[in-house]
This record gives sequence, structure tokens and C-alpha cells, in this order.
Amino acid sequence: MNRIATIAALALSYQAFISPAAAQEAEAVTPNSVVAAATPDEWVAIAPEDLLVMDLAPDAQGRARRVVIQLLPPPFSQPWVENIRTLAVAHWWDGTSVYRVVDNWVAQWGGGEGEGFVARALPEGVVSTSESYSVHLFCTWSSRNREHGFFDCPFDHPGQVDAYVPLGLSGFINGWPIHCYAHVGVARDLAPDTGTGAELYAVIGHAPRQLDRNIAVVGRVIAGIEHLSTLPRGTGDAGVYEDRAADTLILSVRLGNELAEPPTFEYLATESESFARYVEIRANRQDAFYTLPAGGVDICNVQVPIRRAER
Amino acid sequence: MNRIATIAALALSYQAFISPAAAQEAEAVTPNSVVAAATPDEWVAIAPEDLLVMDLAPDAQGRARRVVIQLLPPPFSQPWVENIRTLAVAHWWDGTSVYRVVDNWVAQWGGGEGEGFVARALPEGVVSTSESYSVHLFCTWSSRNREHGFFDCPFDHPGQVDAYVPLGLSGFINGWPIHCYAHVGVARDLAPDTGTGAELYAVIGHAPRQLDRNIAVVGRVIAGIEHLSTLPRGTGDAGVYEDRAADTLILSVRLGNELAEPPTFEYLATESESFARYVEIRANRQDAFYTLPAGGVDICNVQVPIRRAER
Repeated sequence: MNRIATIAALALSYQAFISPAAAQEAEAVTPNSVVAAATPDEWVAIAPEDLLVMDLAPDAQGRARRVVIQLLPPPFSQPWVENIRTLAVAHWWDGTSVYRVVDNWVAQWGGGEGEGFVARALPEGVVSTSESYSVHLFCTWSSRNREHGFFDCPFDHPGQVDAYVPLGLSGFINGWPIHCYAHVGVARDLAPDTGTGAELYAVIGHAPRQLDRNIAVVGRVIAGIEHLSTLPRGTGDAGVYEDRAADTLILSVRLGNELAEPPTFEYLATESESFARYVEIRANRQDAFYTLPAGGVDICNVQVPIRRAER
Repeated sequence: MNRIATIAALALSYQAFISPAAAQEAEAVTPNSVVAAATPDEWVAIAPEDLLVMDLAPDAQGRARRVVIQLLPPPFSQPWVENIRTLAVAHWWDGTSVYRVVDNWVAQWGGGEGEGFVARALPEGVVSTSESYSVHLFCTWSSRNREHGFFDCPFDHPGQVDAYVPLGLSGFINGWPIHCYAHVGVARDLAPDTGTGAELYAVIGHAPRQLDRNIAVVGRVIAGIEHLSTLPRGTGDAGVYEDRAADTLILSVRLGNELAEPPTFEYLATESESFARYVEIRANRQDAFYTLPAGGVDICNVQVPIRRAER
């Protein structure tokens, strides 16, 4: 299990509801077996500079808590991603905290205004994103998807799908689906151009698809999501901790390339043959547990396989 | 907030990504305002005998942890629901544990076989469900929906929707959608008729729609889901705790009517006018935060409003 990152490990849990004592199953093509059979050239290395490494204060038992986030590649959300790089290089998040956790919703951290927040100026170069808002917001997916021959975003066509994509099609581009579990977005004020990236959240529940086109997604947690999803839920306004002493301290946030030993991850190319097969098998499960395969699959249940790479 | 149960409270968190310091927003029709305006006759009381009250051992700070589950009403999954009533009346789960927690997947508890499990016979009357499997499995939703003029289940029509239901339609029956966050299902072995209900799980991540028609859903957590979703994730096989000393002890599980003070809850009737309006507003958010309403909504993002009722 140690070479497999968190998200891939989740994909491994297809034995789901099998009693531990009876976990043997017949040989069958499974999502895992498809991933295991992928060829080395189908895996894409994630550059260290595209990783955001967040170290939280150790837990009550003194265990380290590292959260690794992959930043979203072009063409989407790049103004925010650039802000985030600048903030990381400035060590801007060090000493901030995870201050808001809402069950089936988000864990949120970083900057903020008012009582309980450290007042600190944004580094030079971090700008509001109003100018590029319309062209860079994540769910320009819609027009992009059209260009690429993929599905349109569902909100362009209420009443049409994407939860159960027909076999062989998928809504992935460059290794990314839409706003799913563990994805990271830019918290903002009411006006859509108010988010800089200094305040971020990770999804810890069912995919909040209603936020498509309303929020910029900038990355996804590829290791350590459990350090956010298991945090106590906040009981104050909007899930902020009533007693801010309950915040989880952020020791540091760094781009991977600033670390002496950058984490090394790779993902299964979403344009590869193995990924197409993986989607097909996820839509038509053949393992013994599934009596009636669905014939389709929710895009957020097709976790992109991500694993730790050899150095 | 104290009259609102957990699930309804989640629905309240629509202020989502608004900075705490700027949480004021313009007056607008919101999912909350629709629910607040519902008339008393649109709320349906949940009978105490339809509640399963699970008390976990106190947490590390000595705080009580109560999980309240509403059992699924007819016509679905009733053989399992009857088993569960029998098990609760026999106090069968007392002294068992939550032994398996997988991030973005499930928390699982109760019976089990092999090392680390208490060997105990099932009470008389608890039977395997093979005979009724085909007619009672939850996703006979499919044919039921057709009868009721609702959508067919998506697996009957790969490539068609249910994630974004057209305005005014919904897949709810008697207050229930499909297999969503916090829903409770019957863990089983490989054969579909092996689950009795003695081993149960709650969904703590994105809705596992691939399990539709393969697993019996028997209820939903309506209060205290956070006591399951924040548990440490298991690192052993299939997410079972490697060291079973990490299990969370179940002090007791009772039907609501066996308690001196039964919890009293009510839900907003899914056939009510207010619920129809609530779905419409969830699909077309008008609050100031939403620049581009989706024009549709994933059924698992339409949490049925549930609240504590006055005694």
C-alpha cells in the first residue's frame, strides 16, 4: 500500500462492504487490476513545483500531518494558481490555521479578516482576479469541453447528464475532472472577483456541483486528505470554530521544489488507453461483489489514479 | 441552530465560502428561507420506533457521542429493516464497535466474523434475506419511480441523467432520495443474500452510486454523522483498524421508543409545495453568492430538511 497515494488508495477500497473475514474474491478485471497493468509511459510525473505541501501541527498523539495538494494545470484558474505560488514562496500561510470545518462540505484555511485572524498584508504580486474572472473560472470547462469534443458542462443543458457518462466518454482534461471530493477551491466574498487564493478550502463531502462556474477550483489533495476530513466540525457561524483555540495550526506551506526532499507523485494519464479501460470497468464492475453493474458512473466516483513515484 | 438537526444544518451552510467577516448578504429567497416559511402541516413527524439511537463511547474529551438513524419506510428494504428492529430490541449491538473507517467511503460497525469480533449468535427471527432480495432491494426505486411518474434510475438508461434534474422533478419518494451522504446500508459478503443488517455502514463521502441495486439502503443518519465522519481512518485491510484497540465502542443501540426520552424529529414532506420550491431554489440559487445558478442540482445535494421537533 505504501506506493499508492491516498486517492488511489480510495479507489482500492472497492471491496467495500465485504466482511473482513471473507475478503477473497474470484479473479476478475477490476479498477485496481486495470491500474496495476498500466504501462510506465501511461503515468505522468507531477512536477514538484506543481505541489503545495502543507504541514499541520502534529495531532494529539504527536503524529505529523502532511497534506499534499496538486495545483491545477493550465488552462484553468491560472490567475489564482499564480497567486498561490506567490503566497507559498512568501511563506505567507505559515502560522495561519484551519479555522472552519463543516461536515459534508469543506475544511477551510489560510487568510481571513476580523477577530481570530492574523492580520498580514498580501505579498506583492498577489492580485484580485476580476479581470480574468470570466475567462479563467474553472467552469469555462464548458466551452473547453466543447472544443475537446467532451461533454458540455451540465449547467448549459439542464436535464442532460454528466453523472452517468456513456461508456468511453468522460469529462476529464489533462488528468482532471470537475469539482469533486478532495478538490481545493478559492474561498471568496460575495463578489466573484474577491478571492485571491489566500483563503482555500478542500471538499470533504459530496461534490458541491452547484458551485460550478461560481468558484475557482485550483487543485486537489493527493495525500493526507484525512488530516482535514477528520478534523472536528466547527459549531460557530458557518462552521468556524466557536473557540478559535480549536483551530489547527499550519506550520508551513511550501511549493514542492522548495523542500529538500520533494514529494514525488504521478498520475495515470486520463487520455491513456488504461484510463479509458478504467472508466469502462468502473462503469461496468465485474468483480464478484457487483450483482448488477450500473452501466455508467458518476464522474466523481472515477478517482484519477495517483501514486507515489520512485525517486 | 438547536432546533435544526445535523442534515438540515448542512443545508444551512450555503454561505459556504464567504469570509466570516463579511457574511452579511442581501435579502433573497434561499433554500433556508423556503424551509423557514414551510407551514406546520408540511412537516412529517418521525415515529420514535423508526429511529435507531446509537450511543458511542464518549470521545477523548469525555463528550457524549449519539448517532440517530432514521429507518427507511416501506416499500423498500423492509426485510433488512425488520432484522434491524429485532437486533435493536435484543440489544444485540451493545458492546460491538465501529471497526472500519475509509475516507470518502464508509464508517462500518456491528457484527463481523473472525479475529477482533465478539462471537454472538443472531437473535431468533433475524434471517438471511435471499428470498426477498430481488423485490426489496433499494433500487427497485427504478420501477417505483416509473410508477410514480418520476425519473427512472439512471442505470436503466446509461447516458441519461439524474444528477441535474429538470426543474420541478425530483427522485424523492416518501422523503427519501437514493444512496447519498450519511445514508446507512447493509454490509454483506460477496453473495447478495448474505447481509442480515447486523453489520451496517454509513456513507461518509461522495455518494457511491455504483452500489445502486447492489446494496440495501436501510436508513440515514439524521443527527450525529460527525461522530462517524471524524473517526480516524483505518489503515488495515479494507480500512479495518490494524490495531482493533482503535475501534470505537458502541455502548448501546436502541429503537427510539425504548428510550425514556425518545428523540423527536420531523422532515419536510418531499411531496409538499415547500419542498418543490426548495428543490427549485437549490437548482437556481438566488442568494448573492451565486453569480451563475446551475439550472439543475444533483439529487444528493438536495438534503431533505430534517429538524428536531418540539415535544
